[in-house]
Amino acid sequence: MTDISEDVLKQVITVRKSDSHKGNYGRILLIGGSENYGGAIIMATEAALNAGAGLIATATHSINLTALHARDPEAMYIDYRDPKLADLIKKMDVVVCGPGLGMSDFAKRILLMLKNNTNEKQIIVLDASALDLIGEDHSLLPLNAGHIIMTPHQMEWQRVSQIKIPYQTDAANIEALASLCPKKNITLVLKSNHTHVYSENGEVMVNPLGNPGMATGGSGDTLSGIIGGFCAQFGAKFETILAAVYIHSLAGDIIYQTNYVVKPTQISKLLPQIMKKYSSLN
Amino acid sequence: MTDISEDVLKQVITVRKSDSHKGNYGRILLIGGSENYGGAIIMATEAALNAGAGLIATATHSINLTALHARDPEAMYIDYRDPKLADLIKKMDVVVCGPGLGMSDFAKRILLMLKNNTNEKQIIVLDASALDLIGEDHSLLPLNAGHIIMTPHQMEWQRVSQIKIPYQTDAANIEALASLCPKKNITLVLKSNHTHVYSENGEVMVNPLGNPGMATGGSGDTLSGIIGGFCAQFGAKFETILAAVYIHSLAGDIIYQTNYVVKPTQISKLLPQIMKKYSSLN
Amino acid sequence: MTDISEDVLKQVITVRKSDSHKGNYGRILLIGGSENYGGAIIMATEAALNAGAGLIATATHSINLTALHARDPEAMYIDYRDPKLADLIKKMDVVVCGPGLGMSDFAKRILLMLKNNTNEKQIIVLDASALDLIGEDHSLLPLNAGHIIMTPHQMEWQRVSQIKIPYQTDAANIEALASLCPKKNITLVLKSNHTHVYSENGEVMVNPLGNPGMATGGSGDTLSGIIGGFCAQFGAKFETILAAVYIHSLAGDIIYQTNYVVKPTQISKLLPQIMKKYSSLN
Amino acid sequence: MTDISEDVLKQVITVRKSDSHKGNYGRILLIGGSENYGGAIIMATEAALNAGAGLIATATHSINLTALHARDPEAMYIDYRDPKLADLIKKMDVVVCGPGLGMSDFAKRILLMLKNNTNEKQIIVLDASALDLIGEDHSLLPLNAGHIIMTPHQMEWQRVSQIKIPYQTDAANIEALASLCPKKNITLVLKSNHTHVYSENGEVMVNPLGNPGMATGGSGDTLSGIIGGFCAQFGAKFETILAAVYIHSLAGDIIYQTNYVVKPTQISKLLPQIMKKYSSLN
Repeated sequence: MTDISEDVLKQVITVRKSDSHKGNYGRILLIGGSENYGGAIIMATEAALNAGAGLIATATHSINLTALHARDPEAMYIDYRDPKLADLIKKMDVVVCGPGLGMSDFAKRILLMLKNNTNEKQIIVLDASALDLIGEDHSLLPLNAGHIIMTPHQMEWQRVSQIKIPYQTDAANIEALASLCPKKNITLVLKSNHTHVYSENGEVMVNPLGNPGMATGGSGDTLSGIIGGFCAQFGAKFETILAAVYIHSLAGDIIYQTNYVVKPTQISKLLPQIMKKYSSLN
Repeated sequence: MTDISEDVLKQVITVRKSDSHKGNYGRILLIGGSENYGGAIIMATEAALNAGAGLIATATHSINLTALHARDPEAMYIDYRDPKLADLIKKMDVVVCGPGLGMSDFAKRILLMLKNNTNEKQIIVLDASALDLIGEDHSLLPLNAGHIIMTPHQMEWQRVSQIKIPYQTDAANIEALASLCPKKNITLVLKSNHTHVYSENGEVMVNPLGNPGMATGGSGDTLSGIIGGFCAQFGAKFETILAAVYIHSLAGDIIYQTNYVVKPTQISKLLPQIMKKYSSLN
Repeated sequence: MTDISEDVLKQVITVRKSDSHKGNYGRILLIGGSENYGGAIIMATEAALNAGAGLIATATHSINLTALHARDPEAMYIDYRDPKLADLIKKMDVVVCGPGLGMSDFAKRILLMLKNNTNEKQIIVLDASALDLIGEDHSLLPLNAGHIIMTPHQMEWQRVSQIKIPYQTDAANIEALASLCPKKNITLVLKSNHTHVYSENGEVMVNPLGNPGMATGGSGDTLSGIIGGFCAQFGAKFETILAAVYIHSLAGDIIYQTNYVVKPTQISKLLPQIMKKYSSLN
Repeated sequence: MTDISEDVLKQVITVRKSDSHKGNYGRILLIGGSENYGGAIIMATEAALNAGAGLIATATHSINLTALHARDPEAMYIDYRDPKLADLIKKMDVVVCGPGLGMSDFAKRILLMLKNNTNEKQIIVLDASALDLIGEDHSLLPLNAGHIIMTPHQMEWQRVSQIKIPYQTDAANIEALASLCPKKNITLVLKSNHTHVYSENGEVMVNPLGNPGMATGGSGDTLSGIIGGFCAQFGAKFETILAAVYIHSLAGDIIYQTNYVVKPTQISKLLPQIMKKYSSLN
């Protein structure tokens, strides 16, 4: 069990090649945002955008379209009830599913649609309600994906793994992961005030950063967007995910130096500058 | 009758424990915002968010959802006509009711629903239209709450207490409070250019700060959101409420140094920095 | 014919009394914004708000509500088709009518409603479409108002006065004003790159400031909002209107020092700081 | 084949005459933004506005109105399904068509309407979907325009010209242009990481600036808005278009110095300052 080090940022955030275009930085789709939780998918989208994903589409309830575009016109939009969503999923490099999705029957059908349209080249990030739904029904897990990343907090992980919080030891968590996903193409980001990240090979890394000013709604949505945005650009290597977890807290710590509370949207806003700094160090 | 002192900020705004999560900073629901006064509940929400509440939900007319999320995606949303609002109220630590709510029959039913779903663990902040409605019908007061905070300006207090403005002496106000709320679980924030705060035990404190640049629509909505946000984190102690009143004016005074008018949304924006400063002094 | 001098700002923008409340700074209603021109009434509202009006309400097409509140939650809103608008007009100190109102039959009915509900205590600012409609039908002019301020550009003034642009001499303009408004309770702000302001007594003052970066849509809407906001606070004296015209261009000139184009919303944003500076000089 | 030089900015961005009004800086209409791609036309509008166009109207799906006005109240709006669009087109100096327009039958009808209402005094900028639709049906090209500017990336140009990317030599491109537009009133901006600009007379200029942080959705929409805004003010001379291409990348390079990713809306925001700098150098 080792701390994630700052070096992972230099390693992962490479200088972009001049001979490149937006297709090189990945197509990412973010699915979530019911009528009540639209802010969650907006914050996840804003994070993916500022983390540098090449092309971004957001599938959400139509009620959330205008707030999304008022903040982030860079994101394409699709009504998550639109049957064309299935085709869109197929074209994506990364899909982030769950922020603000809710626990409705409709949300279950979304997860099923995701599963049925995922292929082995794709990276799927599962967060929030998506994890609770999978906790209720493991068959919703899109095992056919190339790589799965789960980002539960401890209670969500309890629901998925059936391991109660006090028993969520590294050994138990690794075993549960292997049992959930026999192909071992999965990474677990178990959020707490010392987030643990578990690789498909049983490696465990601990996030040394973060602060209690980040204990506010939307922090997790933002993390899932950063992970998605990083995977879209840098692939789903373990280091990529470690870098995403680390930079989320690093941004939060910088903001916390002068702010009692750290709003998730401030974290997203700071990402391009932090990424620039580390890209010029490698 | 003593002035509130700057020290109350150091005392109340404690350094957050590293081993904490958003649940530690309270669940707050803000109810208000009719078709005509949506901005009021948006400003109250924005204040609660920047004051550091852990989880924020806003119940308002559906017409206000998009402007809310365009500004503050961190807040969850519920249509205030949704019957599920009753259950949501029950789960909250703090409910702020009134900003922009209006005087309709529907608004009365909201107050009744609030009263019927409040329990003795909850803190209820009553502002604006909620006070006018209670002035019309005292039975709407949610006496079963753990603690009630009223934030009238002088005319609203006249309607609630039946004491005309020139007769609103401390003695009269304290007597009226006791009569309104025999359990004495109530704090009165009587807004004027020298706001008086009355504790449940008959203590009276006066706000020495504030300026006439704050004499603009939305200032009161912002104060009710700050009080709610502070109570969500720090409990409904008298000092908490004094700190909320004081910081609202302190932020206003800082802005007034360089601005002829102080927009309420500027006050909210400044809160995290002021709170940081005082948290590091205690 | 004299230039407006900087001194008028010191004279008009007085230090606010500490013993004051939002009612002291005027109630202002802004009417305009059809389905196509919603931005105009939003910009006028934003100007009135930043110019320091105490209470602001905006009557516009319902399609414009959300953009208004996403930018300026401080403004109350009413659908301009709501029959309650007539009563609201009666309660106002200042009404600004015209920005983005359009030339429909409905717009004419709005002007008629304004006329029928105006009283001798009120200040009415007529801008844009309102002037074109009055050009078509002089009987729409709300002569029963306490004071009328017209803010046409030269072509709009031609339509109102029937004086073609080359013949718009001071003498001709003063005569036309007297004929339009025999009670002489009118001020004319005739916009051009050297705006002339005509008092009810035949005084003429010229705006020495302004720049061609301000030649962009929304500049006039912003001016009408500033005039309305200043009148709400400082009354409809000739100096008040001169100060509003001057500060609009002064803000524009400051922005133009570093920007090739001056967006109207930037002007509004700068007003509180400029006003603070001049209030502390008097 | 020569690089575009910084001098073109000094040459094109002239100091505005003090005796001017918004009509002098052109009327521009931007058409695009389906239900799914509203952000594209918002970004194009924001670019035209910040580039200094005098009067801006945006024709888009009604679902996009509020996000447009929440960001840019300066733009007039028309529902792109409104039959009055045809008349509006006729009154414009510049029309930008395509950002986020999509490939529907309706989009085709828009292009046909544009063609049927274009006259020889107008400048038409064709981007994105408009180019793909013209690729499918060359008869949609508005050859009756005074000047046409096409802004394809290489794949879009392949669809229009039938020249596959590896064969897109200058000679082939010039020949294809002449064949598309026998009157030779056309400029081609062929976007790549070294954008080539082809004049109607076969001149070719290469953009030496730009960076891979700009490889993000919306970059092209912003460029088309800048080109439109520049042509509205400075006419459709070859230098004008070169200046627009150059300043887009110059702004991007400045932002890239401190940001890993360059959001298109940041480019627009920076334009007024860069334009000011170069206007004072000429």
